[in-house]
Amino acid sequence: MDALHDRIRALNDDEAVDGILVQLPLPPKLRTNEVIGWIRPDKDVDGIHPESLGLLLQNQPGLRPCTPMGVLELIKETGVAIEGRDAVIIGRSLIVGKPLAALLTNANATVTICHSKTRDLAGTAARADILVAAMGKAAFVTREFVKPGALVIDVGTSAVSEPETVRTLFGDDPLRAKDLADKGYTLVGDVDPRVIDKAGWLTPVPKGVGPLTIAMLMKNTLEAFKLRRKLA
Amino acid sequence: MDALHDRIRALNDDEAVDGILVQLPLPPKLRTNEVIGWIRPDKDVDGIHPESLGLLLQNQPGLRPCTPMGVLELIKETGVAIEGRDAVIIGRSLIVGKPLAALLTNANATVTICHSKTRDLAGTAARADILVAAMGKAAFVTREFVKPGALVIDVGTSAVSEPETVRTLFGDDPLRAKDLADKGYTLVGDVDPRVIDKAGWLTPVPKGVGPLTIAMLMKNTLEAFKLRRKLA
Repeated sequence: MDALHDRIRALNDDEAVDGILVQLPLPPKLRTNEVIGWIRPDKDVDGIHPESLGLLLQNQPGLRPCTPMGVLELIKETGVAIEGRDAVIIGRSLIVGKPLAALLTNANATVTICHSKTRDLAGTAARADILVAAMGKAAFVTREFVKPGALVIDVGTSAVSEPETVRTLFGDDPLRAKDLADKGYTLVGDVDPRVIDKAGWLTPVPKGVGPLTIAMLMKNTLEAFKLRRKLA
Repeated sequence: MDALHDRIRALNDDEAVDGILVQLPLPPKLRTNEVIGWIRPDKDVDGIHPESLGLLLQNQPGLRPCTPMGVLELIKETGVAIEGRDAVIIGRSLIVGKPLAALLTNANATVTICHSKTRDLAGTAARADILVAAMGKAAFVTREFVKPGALVIDVGTSAVSEPETVRTLFGDDPLRAKDLADKGYTLVGDVDPRVIDKAGWLTPVPKGVGPLTIAMLMKNTLEAFKLRRKLA
């Protein structure tokens, strides 16, 4: 912990450094929350320091978590209005579900956060104009979770190796067969891909939300540069 | 601003001071968010510093906003289980709606935050097992907002001075008539009091949530004492 603390302190003080990212997960012996708390909030390009999260809740300028920002960009790209829409998020993680709920509330959606203790998950999800699946269970979100025409964003990625499951989900898709042959698995989202018939929009997995997360990290680094110099 | 900054800095550094509260609203020429940001987070007994809000979102130890904590205490006092219940909060203020959503999500409720842009407010509210009204509109929540047997928490307080409105809401209640005669107004919550016939529980206004807020401020001050000395 001490060496890591020294390193983060040095980066905090280095005027040439605009962004600091601690690659998670950390080894179990390191206390993640404490380590994140060492980062200067105005260099926290992952947007997960408590102060960054607080500024998000306050809808004040600050660095936002990357995956939720990417989700927001994807929604905007479809042209589907956020204001006044019912948004349902499945999953309440600190890097996706909770900050995304704050972002969507700030954007005037009516937001519901669901999780493992939610009683009627499918019924609640089926009320959503905008449905975000971020709980990390392969192909868990099936047709009965989806309102016809809904915008569905799939944040999950699980490696699935059973050929039978892959065939059920993707039919005879040659790319998936090639994945299984080459790597022994294929990446599957939290949403059953066959939902596409019912949904208005469905982001792919892989190459859906993932690449946006990286782009948002770059955007945050620029934002951090500006924020610290009062240019934003 | 400078004199206030000096004062807060002195209180931050004073070992004998455990809690600092800036009485809001501030005069318009003072920038509220900036002032709140000056308070040491571990002395922020109002729980509204960005870091306090971030710790709440992270479900980590920290000081929580007082009114939402009071609401949680009221819910617990009824014995109604929170886990797995549908909770709907009307109002997304930084001191009530948003932090309460985080507290209830952490307590395993399925939480929806509604606000002025919500399309079907009554219909959404009527799905709630636990309904919290915190938008500051006198007697706005009527019977069609309430699921039979729901636990309804009324956070609003508005001064109503029209005798006709008071009679409609409270009939010939002599205490309300006395209010009008003595003060020229009576305090009305966001919930139409006649909802009591349909709700399972309804907190009164005044003398419902209000006194709890004060009690929670005292609790937070003790908590701040403990947190800063690593006793909690």
